[in-house]
Amino acid sequence: MQQLEKVAWDRHSYLFDGQRRFLVSGEFHYFRVPKEDWRRRLRLWKDAGGNAIATYVPWLIHEPEEGRFAFGPEPWRQVEAFLELCAEDHVHVIARPGPYQYSELRGNGVPLWLFEKYPQLLATDLAGKPRSRISASYIHPIFLEKTKAWFDQVCPLLAKYTLDRGGPIAMAQFDNELMGIHEWCGGWDYNAQSMGFGREDGRYASFLRQRYGSIEAVNEAYGTKFASFADARPIEDKGSRSNEDRRRVRDYMEFYFSTIGEYARILMQMMRERGLDVPFVHNSANPGMNAYFREMMRQTGGQVLLGSDHYYTLNMNWEQNNPTPLYASKCYYSMEMLRLMGCPQTVFEMPGGSCSDFPPVTPSDLRACYFMHAALGMKGVNYYILTGGPNPPGMGTTSDIYDYNAAIAADGTVRPLLQVQKEFAQFLHGNSWLAEAGLDSDFSIGLDWDHALAGNYFANRGDLEMSSADAWLFWRKGMYVSAMCGSWSAGMVDLHSDDLLSSTDRPLWVAASVCMARSVQERLVKFVSEGGRLLIAPVIPYLDENFRPCTLLRDFLDGASVSECSGACLRLNAGPVENVQLSGRLFKAQTLPSGAAAMAREVNSGATCGWKVARGKGSLIWLGLQWMHTMNEHSRMVEYLLAECGVRSRVVECDNPNVWTTLRSGAGRRMLFVMNLFSSPMVANIRVPSAGEGKPVRYELPPMTVQPVEIR
Amino acid sequence: MQQLEKVAWDRHSYLFDGQRRFLVSGEFHYFRVPKEDWRRRLRLWKDAGGNAIATYVPWLIHEPEEGRFAFGPEPWRQVEAFLELCAEDHVHVIARPGPYQYSELRGNGVPLWLFEKYPQLLATDLAGKPRSRISASYIHPIFLEKTKAWFDQVCPLLAKYTLDRGGPIAMAQFDNELMGIHEWCGGWDYNAQSMGFGREDGRYASFLRQRYGSIEAVNEAYGTKFASFADARPIEDKGSRSNEDRRRVRDYMEFYFSTIGEYARILMQMMRERGLDVPFVHNSANPGMNAYFREMMRQTGGQVLLGSDHYYTLNMNWEQNNPTPLYASKCYYSMEMLRLMGCPQTVFEMPGGSCSDFPPVTPSDLRACYFMHAALGMKGVNYYILTGGPNPPGMGTTSDIYDYNAAIAADGTVRPLLQVQKEFAQFLHGNSWLAEAGLDSDFSIGLDWDHALAGNYFANRGDLEMSSADAWLFWRKGMYVSAMCGSWSAGMVDLHSDDLLSSTDRPLWVAASVCMARSVQERLVKFVSEGGRLLIAPVIPYLDENFRPCTLLRDFLDGASVSECSGACLRLNAGPVENVQLSGRLFKAQTLPSGAAAMAREVNSGATCGWKVARGKGSLIWLGLQWMHTMNEHSRMVEYLLAECGVRSRVVECDNPNVWTTLRSGAGRRMLFVMNLFSSPMVANIRVPSAGEGKPVRYELPPMTVQPVEIR
Repeated sequence: MQQLEKVAWDRHSYLFDGQRRFLVSGEFHYFRVPKEDWRRRLRLWKDAGGNAIATYVPWLIHEPEEGRFAFGPEPWRQVEAFLELCAEDHVHVIARPGPYQYSELRGNGVPLWLFEKYPQLLATDLAGKPRSRISASYIHPIFLEKTKAWFDQVCPLLAKYTLDRGGPIAMAQFDNELMGIHEWCGGWDYNAQSMGFGREDGRYASFLRQRYGSIEAVNEAYGTKFASFADARPIEDKGSRSNEDRRRVRDYMEFYFSTIGEYARILMQMMRERGLDVPFVHNSANPGMNAYFREMMRQTGGQVLLGSDHYYTLNMNWEQNNPTPLYASKCYYSMEMLRLMGCPQTVFEMPGGSCSDFPPVTPSDLRACYFMHAALGMKGVNYYILTGGPNPPGMGTTSDIYDYNAAIAADGTVRPLLQVQKEFAQFLHGNSWLAEAGLDSDFSIGLDWDHALAGNYFANRGDLEMSSADAWLFWRKGMYVSAMCGSWSAGMVDLHSDDLLSSTDRPLWVAASVCMARSVQERLVKFVSEGGRLLIAPVIPYLDENFRPCTLLRDFLDGASVSECSGACLRLNAGPVENVQLSGRLFKAQTLPSGAAAMAREVNSGATCGWKVARGKGSLIWLGLQWMHTMNEHSRMVEYLLAECGVRSRVVECDNPNVWTTLRSGAGRRMLFVMNLFSSPMVANIRVPSAGEGKPVRYELPPMTVQPVEIR
Repeated sequence: MQQLEKVAWDRHSYLFDGQRRFLVSGEFHYFRVPKEDWRRRLRLWKDAGGNAIATYVPWLIHEPEEGRFAFGPEPWRQVEAFLELCAEDHVHVIARPGPYQYSELRGNGVPLWLFEKYPQLLATDLAGKPRSRISASYIHPIFLEKTKAWFDQVCPLLAKYTLDRGGPIAMAQFDNELMGIHEWCGGWDYNAQSMGFGREDGRYASFLRQRYGSIEAVNEAYGTKFASFADARPIEDKGSRSNEDRRRVRDYMEFYFSTIGEYARILMQMMRERGLDVPFVHNSANPGMNAYFREMMRQTGGQVLLGSDHYYTLNMNWEQNNPTPLYASKCYYSMEMLRLMGCPQTVFEMPGGSCSDFPPVTPSDLRACYFMHAALGMKGVNYYILTGGPNPPGMGTTSDIYDYNAAIAADGTVRPLLQVQKEFAQFLHGNSWLAEAGLDSDFSIGLDWDHALAGNYFANRGDLEMSSADAWLFWRKGMYVSAMCGSWSAGMVDLHSDDLLSSTDRPLWVAASVCMARSVQERLVKFVSEGGRLLIAPVIPYLDENFRPCTLLRDFLDGASVSECSGACLRLNAGPVENVQLSGRLFKAQTLPSGAAAMAREVNSGATCGWKVARGKGSLIWLGLQWMHTMNEHSRMVEYLLAECGVRSRVVECDNPNVWTTLRSGAGRRMLFVMNLFSSPMVANIRVPSAGEGKPVRYELPPMTVQPVEIR
C-alpha cells in the first residue's frame, strides 16, 4: 500500500515529504457524516484538491457516563473505522480530541455529567460566580484528572493511527479556541482553587512572588496593603484609570495567560505519554486573541503550530456579511502575528459555510475570501466545515441536522461551494512555490504585542496622552489602511525581536502610546543608530509596559516631548501636503531634539507637529498625528513621509485606493494579487515597476473579486 | 415670469400645485459653491430631475461677531442673491437657518463667540460638566435670546423669498438633527438652569408636579426621599435594575423630550413671527432617534414634517460599507415610523457621497440604496450633499474643500453619481402614482413606541423576564427579517393608535416585553374581541409602561402566564415544523387560558411553548420564542403560524430568502421591487399570484441591485 506523505512544518510552510506545499484541509466529522457516505465524501474532497481533513473526537460522544467509554457500536462512535478509511484513501487527518471541541455540541463537546457532578471545576469570576454552566477552569485539579481519564482512552487509540505507524494522523490539536469559553462568558477565569488564591503556595502567589520578590513590592506596585502573598487578589476592571490598577489587571492577564501555557503543556505531555507523538496545533478563536497565545508559545518552545480562526459572519449580529477590506486588515495582522510567532500562517477555521442561513455566506464571497488569504500569505487552510450530517442523538445544540451550508451538504449533495474550493486548491497546488514566497514590501510596520493586548487593561487612558489600545487602533485603521489605500506594501516586524535590527534596509513605522517596553525602546534606539529610518507617531513614550518611567527613546532624542493640540479646528500641513484632516488626535512638539527640522505644522497655530532628526547612522521622524484613514490626503501625507524615509517608488503602483494589492515572490517567481473587496465593480490601472517599464495594466474587477496574476 | 409650483404635503405625499409628486431635493450650499457656478450647477440638477435644493443658512457665517450680521459682501455670504437665482431658475428651496447646522462647520454652525462668551449655556451632564465645548442647552435663556437675535435678522430676510411672495422657499427647517449634539457627546442635557433643578417653578419640578401631583407620590414612584419638588433630581443610569430607577430615568427621558418639543415650538413661533410662514420640516439624525420626536410631534400638532437621515457609512467605524439587508430593515422601520407619525416618508439626508474617501460610497451601491428606499415607500429625498466647494475661510472643521465625493464635485466636475440620481428621478417622476401607493401586505407588525425608546431606560432586564429593549431587538431582527426572508409583506401598525382597530382584516404580530401601556393592552383586547387575529411573543405583559402592575391582557386570557425554559439544549417543535433552532430565549406556558390548544412544544421536555385560543370574534396565538432570524426553519415556523392566523397565500412569492421584495399599489397600478442587497449575484423565481396564474419569473440579480418591475 502506498504510504501517506510525512507532514512537517517550519516557519515558512508545511512540508509534505520535505516538499513545500499548502495544507488544504476540510473539517469532516465522522460522528455526523453517515458512515456509509464517509468514503464517497472523502473522495469528493480529494478530487477537489484536499490533502487533509480535520475532525474533533468529542469527549461528550465517547464517554457518555463517567468511566464508560464508547468507541462503538454506533457508527457515529466508530472513530477507528474512520481513521482506517482515511489511511486507505490517503487523506491526512488533524485529530482534535479536546477536552473542549465547541462545534455546536452540548457542553461545548465536554460531557455534561462532568459539570453536573463537579461544579467546583467551573471557571468563575472574581466573586466566585461561574462564567457559565459549561465553562471549565482549565487547570482545576478535577478537570485535569477527568481529562486524563479521557485521554487515557482516546490518546492510545488515536496513537495507533499516526503517520509513523502507518495511519493518517499527521497532527493533533489540543483543546479548541482556548480561553473563548471564559472571555465570551464575561471574562477570564478566577476560580479560587485553580488560581490558588489564599494560599502562599498557590499559583497566583507564586506568580507574584516570582515577579515582585516581596509582598511589600507588590503593595508598592498595586497601591495595596496585602499582608501576605496569600492575601493578594487581582481586580477585574478593564477600564482602570490609575497606573497601579492597570498594572494589577495587566499582571493578572499575564498570570492567566501563563496558566493557559501550563494547561497546554500538561495536555501535550498527556498526549505524548499516551503515544500521540505527532506535531501539535492549536487555533486562536479570532485575530483579536492571537496575542493571548504568546506566553503559551514561549512555554511550549516552538513545538506548537498556532493558527487562527477567521470568520467574517455567523449571523446578523456580526459587523459585516462579506469579506470587506476591514476583514482583510484583520486577516493580515492575524497572519502576520502567526508568522512572527514562527508558524506557517494557517487558518484552522476558514469559513466554509455558516451555522446561520441568514445572512448567507455565498460561494462568490468565499472565493474572494480564500484568494484574499493567499494574497496575504496564508500557508494552510482548514474549511469549517467541509461537510456535516445529523448530530448524534441529543448531542447537538442547534438543529438535529448540522448542515452549516457547507460545500457538501448534510445529506451528501454537492453544493457550488465545492467547486470554488476546488478552484482555490488547484491554484494553491499549481503555485506551491507561493508556500515559501514572501511579501515584497516598501516599508515595515512595527508590531508592539503590548498594544494588541491593551484593550484588557489600558483602554482607558485617563490623564495619559495616549493609551496602548488607542495605538493599536491607530495601527490598524490608520497606518495599515493608509498604506493599502496608497498602494504601499507594508510588512510587519516584531518590535520585541532582535530580527528587527536586521531589517534596517526598510523604513519602520511605529504607532506608539505613552508605554513602550524598555527592550523595545532599546531596540529602536539601536535600529536608528545602526542606520534605520524610523517614524514614530503620535507620541514619544516615557513609560515602560508596566507603567514605570522609562525614557530611553526620549533621552535618545534629547528629552523630546509632546503635548496635545487643543482648538476647535485643527488641521495639519505635512510638508507639501496641506490641510490634512485629522480623524484622530493631534500633538505638538514641546521640546525638540537638537538638530530636528520641523516637517509638519498645525494649520492655524503653526505649532510643530512633526520633525525629523538624524541620529547615529539613521534618522527618526516624529509625527504628532493619530489618524484613522478616511481621506485620500492621508495617503498623500504618507507618501510624503515615506519619501522623507527614503522610499520614492512602490513595489506595486495602483491608481485606485479602493483596490488593494500585494506582490509575493519566491523561487524566482512573482504573483500579483488584485483585490476588490467591495460590492461595486472597480477599475484600476496597475503597474509593477520591477516588471519593466511597461504601461499600467487596466483591471476591471467585478464586485468582490480577488484576481491573482503571475508577473513574468 | 412662470410661477414656482406651490408645495404642500399630507400624510400620503407631497403635493406640487395639488398634484401628488415626489420631492427630489439636493443639498446645495451657496456658501460653499462658488457664486459664479451657482446657476450652472442648479441647471445640472434640474436637468437631473431635481425639483428642490436644501441649504443651511449658517449662523456661524452670518454673525461673525456678536451683533454684527453679514449677508455680504463676500459671495459666500450672499444668501439673497442665491435665493433670487433659485427663483429665476425655478428650483424650490428648503431653508435650514439653524440655530444648529452641523455640516462639518466649526461650532456645528453656531458662532464660536457664543460658547466662549456664554459657557453657562452649554448642555451638561448631571454633575454639571459640559457635554462638549459646542453643545448648547437648547432652552437655556441665553441660547434662546441669542437665537432670537439671529432669527431677527435671518428670518425676515428669508421671508422675502417664500413661495407666497414669489420666492423659492417652499419649506423651512428649524435646527438640525435635534438632540444629536447631546446624545453623541455622552448623553442628554441636564443643564441645571435650563431644567430648573432646585426651583419649585423649574421645568423639571413642573413636569413632576404635573405627572405626580405631590412630592410624596414622586418619592413613592422613585423610592426617594425628596423634601420638595425643588429638591428632586433625575439619575442618568441607562442600565438601571430597579423599577423605581427605571421609572426615574424614563421620566427624565420624557421630560427631556418635552423640552425638545418646547424648543421646537419656540423656534417655529420665532420664525413665523418674523414672516417665515412656510411649512416646517425637521430631520431625525437616524432611524434610532425617530421615536424621540413623538412628543415634539404631539406638541406641534401635525405642523411639522419629520423626516430622517439614512446614512449607511461615513467612515471605517460604521458597521457596514454598503446598503445591506440590515440597513434596509432600519430604513423600513424608520420610514414606517414617519408614516405612522402622519408624514410623507422623507429622507432629508440621503447619502449622496461621504465625508470620507474611504470606505468609498459608490454609485452602484447608491443606486441600490435609492431604489430600495422607493421599494419601502419613500416619498421625498434630499441628497446630502448634491455639491460642495471651498469652506468659507476658517469655517470648516475638515479640509478646506468640502467635496464629499458628491454628484457634482467641489470643483464643479460632474461625477457618475449624478447620472444615477437622474435615473432615479426619472423613475420617480415617471411613476408619480407611487407617491400615493401603499404596501400590499400579508400581515401587520405592531409598533410599540416604548420599545423603540427602551434602550434608554430598560436595556437591563434584571429579574424581569424580558426587557422592552429585548423586544425591540426581537421585532427588528426576528419578526421583520423572518418576514422578509420568508417572502411575506409586513406592514407596520401603531399600537398606540385606534387606527389599529380598523385593521382587523390582517393578522397582527406583536413583540412583547413584560411592559405594555394600559392603552395598548386595552386596544389589543378590543382588536381580538372585534375579530382580529393576534400573535404575541414571547411573553404576556403584566406591567404598564411605567412598571406598574397592569394585567388587562393577561386577565383577558384567564391569567395566562409564562416562565423561561431552562436547559442546555432547548429546541422548539412548532406544529409540523420540527427542531426550530432558538437563537434567542424560550418561554413555556405556566397557566393556560381556558380553551387554549397547544401548538408548539419544547422538544426535550414537551413543555407547551405556544398556544392558540379563540376570544370574542377573534383569536390569539401566544408563542414563547424570541428569535433572531438565522435559519430557514424560522421562516417555516412563521409560515405555520401565519397559516394558523388565516394567511395561506402571499402577496409575492419568492423562492430565494436572500432576495427581498415589496409590492406597492395605488391608482390601479402596481410595482414590484426585487432586491439583492448582497455582494454576490442572486437568482430568484418570483410570482405575484394576483397577477394571474402564470409561472414564476426568473430574476438574475447582479450584486447590490434593486429592480423595479411594473406588474400589469
